[in-house]
Amino acid sequence: MVENIEFQPRLNQTKVRDGFWDYFQKLILEQVIPYQEKILRDEIPEIEKSHVIENFRIAAGLSKGDFYGMVFQDSDLAKWMEAVSNAIAISDDSWFRTKAAEMIDLIGKAQEEDGYLDTYFQIKAPDKKWTDLLEAHELYCMGHMIEATVANYEATGKDDFLKIGKKIADCIGRRFGKEAGKKRGIPGHPEIEIALLRLYHATGERRYLENAEYFINERGTEPNYFEEEAERRDITIFGMDPKDRGYAQNNKPVRELTEATGHAVRAAYLYTAMADLAADLHDEALQAACERLWNNIVNQKMYITGGIGSTVHGEAFTIPYDLPNDTIYAETCASVAMVFFAREMLQMNPSGRYADVMEKELYNTVLSGMQHDGTRFFYVNPLEVDPSVSGKVPGYEHVLPERPQWYACACCPPNVSRCITALSKYAWGENENTIYAHLYVGGTFASSCIPGVSIDVESGYPWKGNVRYTIGENKENREFTLAVRIPAWARNAAAILRIRNGEEETSQNVSMEESLRDGYLYLNGLTHVGDCVEICFEMPVRRIYANPKVRKDAGLVAIARGPIVYALEERDNGAELYALSLPDSAKLETEEVKDPVLGSYVRITADGYRDISNGEGLYSEKKPETAGQTLTFVPYYLWGNRGSGEMRVWVRDV
Amino acid sequence: MVENIEFQPRLNQTKVRDGFWDYFQKLILEQVIPYQEKILRDEIPEIEKSHVIENFRIAAGLSKGDFYGMVFQDSDLAKWMEAVSNAIAISDDSWFRTKAAEMIDLIGKAQEEDGYLDTYFQIKAPDKKWTDLLEAHELYCMGHMIEATVANYEATGKDDFLKIGKKIADCIGRRFGKEAGKKRGIPGHPEIEIALLRLYHATGERRYLENAEYFINERGTEPNYFEEEAERRDITIFGMDPKDRGYAQNNKPVRELTEATGHAVRAAYLYTAMADLAADLHDEALQAACERLWNNIVNQKMYITGGIGSTVHGEAFTIPYDLPNDTIYAETCASVAMVFFAREMLQMNPSGRYADVMEKELYNTVLSGMQHDGTRFFYVNPLEVDPSVSGKVPGYEHVLPERPQWYACACCPPNVSRCITALSKYAWGENENTIYAHLYVGGTFASSCIPGVSIDVESGYPWKGNVRYTIGENKENREFTLAVRIPAWARNAAAILRIRNGEEETSQNVSMEESLRDGYLYLNGLTHVGDCVEICFEMPVRRIYANPKVRKDAGLVAIARGPIVYALEERDNGAELYALSLPDSAKLETEEVKDPVLGSYVRITADGYRDISNGEGLYSEKKPETAGQTLTFVPYYLWGNRGSGEMRVWVRDV
Repeated sequence: MVENIEFQPRLNQTKVRDGFWDYFQKLILEQVIPYQEKILRDEIPEIEKSHVIENFRIAAGLSKGDFYGMVFQDSDLAKWMEAVSNAIAISDDSWFRTKAAEMIDLIGKAQEEDGYLDTYFQIKAPDKKWTDLLEAHELYCMGHMIEATVANYEATGKDDFLKIGKKIADCIGRRFGKEAGKKRGIPGHPEIEIALLRLYHATGERRYLENAEYFINERGTEPNYFEEEAERRDITIFGMDPKDRGYAQNNKPVRELTEATGHAVRAAYLYTAMADLAADLHDEALQAACERLWNNIVNQKMYITGGIGSTVHGEAFTIPYDLPNDTIYAETCASVAMVFFAREMLQMNPSGRYADVMEKELYNTVLSGMQHDGTRFFYVNPLEVDPSVSGKVPGYEHVLPERPQWYACACCPPNVSRCITALSKYAWGENENTIYAHLYVGGTFASSCIPGVSIDVESGYPWKGNVRYTIGENKENREFTLAVRIPAWARNAAAILRIRNGEEETSQNVSMEESLRDGYLYLNGLTHVGDCVEICFEMPVRRIYANPKVRKDAGLVAIARGPIVYALEERDNGAELYALSLPDSAKLETEEVKDPVLGSYVRITADGYRDISNGEGLYSEKKPETAGQTLTFVPYYLWGNRGSGEMRVWVRDV
Repeated sequence: MVENIEFQPRLNQTKVRDGFWDYFQKLILEQVIPYQEKILRDEIPEIEKSHVIENFRIAAGLSKGDFYGMVFQDSDLAKWMEAVSNAIAISDDSWFRTKAAEMIDLIGKAQEEDGYLDTYFQIKAPDKKWTDLLEAHELYCMGHMIEATVANYEATGKDDFLKIGKKIADCIGRRFGKEAGKKRGIPGHPEIEIALLRLYHATGERRYLENAEYFINERGTEPNYFEEEAERRDITIFGMDPKDRGYAQNNKPVRELTEATGHAVRAAYLYTAMADLAADLHDEALQAACERLWNNIVNQKMYITGGIGSTVHGEAFTIPYDLPNDTIYAETCASVAMVFFAREMLQMNPSGRYADVMEKELYNTVLSGMQHDGTRFFYVNPLEVDPSVSGKVPGYEHVLPERPQWYACACCPPNVSRCITALSKYAWGENENTIYAHLYVGGTFASSCIPGVSIDVESGYPWKGNVRYTIGENKENREFTLAVRIPAWARNAAAILRIRNGEEETSQNVSMEESLRDGYLYLNGLTHVGDCVEICFEMPVRRIYANPKVRKDAGLVAIARGPIVYALEERDNGAELYALSLPDSAKLETEEVKDPVLGSYVRITADGYRDISNGEGLYSEKKPETAGQTLTFVPYYLWGNRGSGEMRVWVRDV
């Protein structure tokens, strides 16, 4: 194992031209990134103040004042800069370069001589730097900034911003490690590990990998670093309990971990870095730990939408099969993190089960995090919302029936921006023999491992089960394998190779039995420009049932089609959605819809029932009567775009 | 309305000899009260220290030390003393008189010259008395002590303890009121109002009624007393928000209240006092408010078991139809309080709907509060428990799968003791024309309003639907009406009067149509010793469905028989109770059982199904298969007596 490493492309190797994703990338580029910049600059008066640019200006000596915002406020700018850097790679609009240059200048001025960059401590408590790694998010903020610098370098080829990132990393590397003169330390919120590994991949400088390895290996060791630190430090930020080792994934050395615990975003960021390091070091024990954690999440702790984190208390995982739909957390950032984790697992082992989950996250809970017009965002992605309790009644306060505009803690919106702009990284992979198509995203991929080869993709996905991969270029007539993922839920998948041999074109049915391995269709013979493979599969509406061990889904059924999970909304079905039921025998009809608010999508309808109230009292010996009602399902990612109302994914199966 | 007032009997007018209740009363007298005394005296080492007797000894100058315990620790002794006083009334055992005398002596010594009695402030903060009515529970503790003194007076006819109660009440009366020189004030936790009205009834001294009236009428008026107080005071105990007016039922003047809000026990104690005052004053506006609040609770905010308080956050009511079964609060004390509220509503209006609820509370959530051996107690009475989350996972920590031994906050156990020992007060009522039998409790009732009359009752209730009321004495040959409640769920109820006329006995079928009004069967002609009425009704197992507006009960059915709600337990049905379902067509079989742990009860079984897991994964297109399984239901009040395990009341209806 850990042999057949596959690499993520740089974004500028690719171009997305896709009937589904174009809308979202354009939205991010044209609306979300500029809008978020205004927020970062405090130019939108009705929105909670960000102050992050001003914090950097104060740290740079360009302005006077106090730090304002969360202790991790810096990361808002860093994640925005990563999205802008992605935008430079995928867009011709010079606005992004101009904006990036301005910010790089500011960030450079804010950075201290030794590379340290965290405006909270620079402004507020310069003498307390590095004293509260559990809570203070210094390594987290600097990690995000390093990621942004790497993204910028990959997009532009220029290293002005990368130098800032390297300076940060070197500052960290000089301080933390096992070598004489260095200090012990691990971050309360994993992120620096991902960043240092990205920096290593971009620069090839091994010290960054070694520093990431240090942080990963040090985690969960004795004595508990956070307890040691808590005894020394004289500041406190959130009052976190340093003894709560599971919350911050500090309970065991990483290679011994068997169960996903604690804060879901922290967990998935750590596992992402672990998987990346396992690939870099060909570390089978680390890969095995990642595999255990993956299975624990996917087989016991994940909502059907891809959401993770069952409880608001610590925004955390709970126990296996505990998946409440209405008091759920399922943070948007945690789904973004699962995309990262899946992508790193694919790197070592191209198995469809990773890509299927990655796709599920992207088409459901990553997109549901954002209003369809890009102006508002969900933190929490519930599977059941009732505005009479959601957002109001104790225990439900965090579950909102409508996306709010912006949060004081604004981690999710820029995470969606950087994830969707980097879509091609998740869609494609390659090594010197093989090009991997993990997702069906229309556009072009130009290989860097197999020189001169580019592939064009056309697809009606996710609404239609057909996709065509065509050789766009192959300057050196290289032979290679194209590995295309076939989703596990696809029915009657078939593929036809159309190969040009001079003037002649031969068509050839691909034998699924021979070519499909672990969810990937391995195709050879695509060599000449114009050679293509046409893949098609049926995409019937699927009824999905939870394992009977999931207490909260007993007797319920969910609807999905392709990668899209569906939901009932009050807008289409009236209030009291819990009174609806779907008979086993009901035919599920599909219809293509163009909606001014929701865009184009496939709507699903079925003849169902509604329980009718017998009167005002609470309990009756008379069973509620039912009336026929058409049930209308819309894609989950579109919910909450038409005003406040009820929503639910699971419906009673009768 | 508010015309036909009916009075509660004193306990020594009655004798319970009942196949069901004898066990529980004996348990309270022989086990619980002596056991609780040992706890109050800190003589049981493995149990959390109470210190309450020691607090009184310190306040009395008999011991040295600090106050220990909750700010309302005094009320543990007061409620225990009320139970002991009830025990004196219903038992011949002199132990209770001896114990009461000891405690009365101690309590008298602890009381200050002016009548003040609250050991927390006497020991800890004598200069802070009366400064934190919102949080400090002074009026609550003194109210409970007054109640105990009244109970003692009623049981013994001696006024040594009553004098202490009157001294307390006079101390309060001198301080609080609208008259010149008195201060404004209302209690954070209603209770004093109930106590002062009981004291008024026992003594006929109108100033106590007037003081209760003051506290009731002052509540919810402007300006908010608790905010005024918070500005002045320099202590804080729980950090409660004085602006949260709903929590402490301080949101509106009481006659304007329309919705039950806030802490459920506080609410029901207040409504109890309001109903009692409405009866005393023939206050129709106050009665109407009580009626609105009653309907709001019973028709929108009550569990099928009688539990109230949907959320642990503030142990409070939430919104209509919000009745989660597994994150529920449903405090035992709140069900005791609903017994009180129902009893006061009956006083003004003998309607079966009040008595039906009172009965539901007593046979379900009051009894479920206590282990069947009397040694352990539930605070929270859930309708669904899964030990993998209950008591563990955030949001479920308060829901325990087994009764703990004792609580630091021990309000519930002594409340169960005083409620069950006072059972006859809820079972009987009377005025100069009519004797009311609200509950079917076997034994004897000697009227105080209709001199010389006593009635004997025999009953197989709650397991059998038959009961006989026989004239035991009628020394003056009085004519009177016997009003016997017929539960709303009773089927084919019939009654036969057997009247002796000299040697002859005539039997006469009672016309239900003519004699049954608002849930009560009004019977005349029972005059001679031995005259009796035999009432019988069918008690089939009932399937009960929630209003479809109850989101958490959609598609579910509950089982009841007579007043008893039933539950599934893991012990009888295996784990994963949520995988079970009950077909509409299944026959519900009953069986009388004698169990060494659970005692005698009627068990219900039915042929149901269990969903079978398809494998390890979370989601599948394959609907879970089902296997036949016998479902075994036990009375809800018996749950949790056979070790830790799952329990649920609502089962899937298929």
